Amino acid sequence: MNKLSVLLVSGALLSPLWMSSASAQFAKPEDAIKYRQSAFVLLASQFGRMQPTVKGQVPYDAAAIKANVALVQTLSTLPWGAFGAGTEGKSSAKPEVWSDAAGFKAAQTKFESAIVKLSAAADSGDLDKLRAAFGDVGASCKACHDSYRIKK
Amino acid sequence: MNKLSVLLVSGALLSPLWMSSASAQFAKPEDAIKYRQSAFVLLASQFGRMQPTVKGQVPYDAAAIKANVALVQTLSTLPWGAFGAGTEGKSSAKPEVWSDAAGFKAAQTKFESAIVKLSAAADSGDLDKLRAAFGDVGASCKACHDSYRIKK
Repeated sequence: MNKLSVLLVSGALLSPLWMSSASAQFAKPEDAIKYRQSAFVLLASQFGRMQPTVKGQVPYDAAAIKANVALVQTLSTLPWGAFGAGTEGKSSAKPEVWSDAAGFKAAQTKFESAIVKLSAAADSGDLDKLRAAFGDVGASCKACHDSYRIKK
Repeated sequence: MNKLSVLLVSGALLSPLWMSSASAQFAKPEDAIKYRQSAFVLLASQFGRMQPTVKGQVPYDAAAIKANVALVQTLSTLPWGAFGAGTEGKSSAKPEVWSDAAGFKAAQTKFESAIVKLSAAADSGDLDKLRAAFGDVGASCKACHDSYRIKK
């Protein structure tokens, strides 16, 4: 039986003993960890593929960038609900994610604000604005990684 | 240096030796595998969390379901471009994904069509329609897994 079927048949999501309001969607801490890691994989991939445009190495396709930024914006909302209490587990998240929850939340807010600006820049169709906003998003990624992610 | 920085600094995405039109966005086959696996993790999670509603175990929150289905629909488009030639690698994908490309494409089309119906059902606000469409999507997931995914 595949994993999806197991999930659907067992109703594993319904009444987990392990649960917090922020992580009620996950049956097990490992599920939350896998979810947030997956969100970051997609986010980094979709964000990174705009680099050739920003570097001027490929022509600026404003419509394609706009669509990609919309996807990045959607993906950017996903990881945070999967950092609930009790989801430390085996992951690259530093203990500070939980011990300095306010700081982590502030870093998240900064990132989301940078993404909003990236979206506005993509809408403007101005490559210089896109380049600046792209850099700011990258910097907000790095700042959060430096403080809250274990170095690989 | 974190992985995102490495990606950004090295320009690894720009001119991979390994490349096909379907997989030009990935520097290495492993990146494509990781990407599609991540997309499936998010997809299964977001789809699965509608189960309590469909089973009538929680009240039907039409707006929340509609928003979730929109996310599922976005996620449902992501995995396929990461099954490019040369991305067999270490994964649960059967060789048939590539040797029976037409069948795999047909399964994908069936899934996407089921997702469109799920979206319409969510828009209708009718729980019975949602339940039926949810079941059809689940069946299309399973059909594809049965044919194209190695059993765990």
